[in-house]
Amino acid sequence: MLIRDAVEPDWPLVYPFFAQIVAEGRTYAFPEDLTLDQARGWWMESPPGRTVVAVDGPTILGSAKIGPNRPGRGSHVATASFMVDPSHRSHGVGRALGLHVIDWARSAGYRSIQFNAVVETNTSAVTLWHSLGFRTIGTVPEAFDHPDHGLVGLHVMWLDLSASSG
Amino acid sequence: MLIRDAVEPDWPLVYPFFAQIVAEGRTYAFPEDLTLDQARGWWMESPPGRTVVAVDGPTILGSAKIGPNRPGRGSHVATASFMVDPSHRSHGVGRALGLHVIDWARSAGYRSIQFNAVVETNTSAVTLWHSLGFRTIGTVPEAFDHPDHGLVGLHVMWLDLSASSG
Repeated sequence: MLIRDAVEPDWPLVYPFFAQIVAEGRTYAFPEDLTLDQARGWWMESPPGRTVVAVDGPTILGSAKIGPNRPGRGSHVATASFMVDPSHRSHGVGRALGLHVIDWARSAGYRSIQFNAVVETNTSAVTLWHSLGFRTIGTVPEAFDHPDHGLVGLHVMWLDLSASSG
Repeated sequence: MLIRDAVEPDWPLVYPFFAQIVAEGRTYAFPEDLTLDQARGWWMESPPGRTVVAVDGPTILGSAKIGPNRPGRGSHVATASFMVDPSHRSHGVGRALGLHVIDWARSAGYRSIQFNAVVETNTSAVTLWHSLGFRTIGTVPEAFDHPDHGLVGLHVMWLDLSASSG
């Protein structure tokens, strides 16, 4: 598995699993039923943000985007989002993307990484982020309308990069 | 004091105190040094969002914007931002705007209101939101670069509207 910057020809290969994951409705509050062109701006970042893909030869296994969580006086905190092609789940793609994002954020000078909305029932993600050092800052009750579980909470998760960069 | 929907001719009257408050750098992580035209999109909302102004005759005392905090499966949670002209502070403008926003969000069918980034040293805002029923879900450490205090936390605050609508 190689992780590299996403380029424009990658998007038509990312979009099918982006659309599938959004349609499943279990992990992300993105607008629904976005076309290929409409969805591009929701995933393909421009500097200072960045989008990467995890590839195995010609196959895109997953993707992540990262950038400042806020402009101005909040721009020292990064945020990121992750999508792994459901047909390539449970092979460490998410973990590899997470480690890549953490390394990149640290080297780019961010002081921390904040996830704004991790669905509390997405236990594989919550477990992964905890294993990489993130902690849950708080949980907004009933903030996500889950197709199976109804209204569930969204975790705010946070990783300090300033203490572990030495 | 009257609170009404903002219209396009209001923006040149809101922008001076918007720019002043952003330049002071104590309350919001907006991009800095935005021109009148650049800043418009950061404050003047389109449906389903909404921007209001608090006025006293021809004078705009303050402004608030409100809308869904997230699209799709998070769109039942509202968010809002507030700016009171510094020359009209401490006259209840923020409180009046807050009450207006809460009433509007409830009548529009939102289940809750989430503030994503309340600067922890902005004690007048924190006290006001607590007095209106918001609670602090968590605080992201060192997420805001304050000109006087250095890196300070950002509160995630939340008000449940579902229990108190009867």
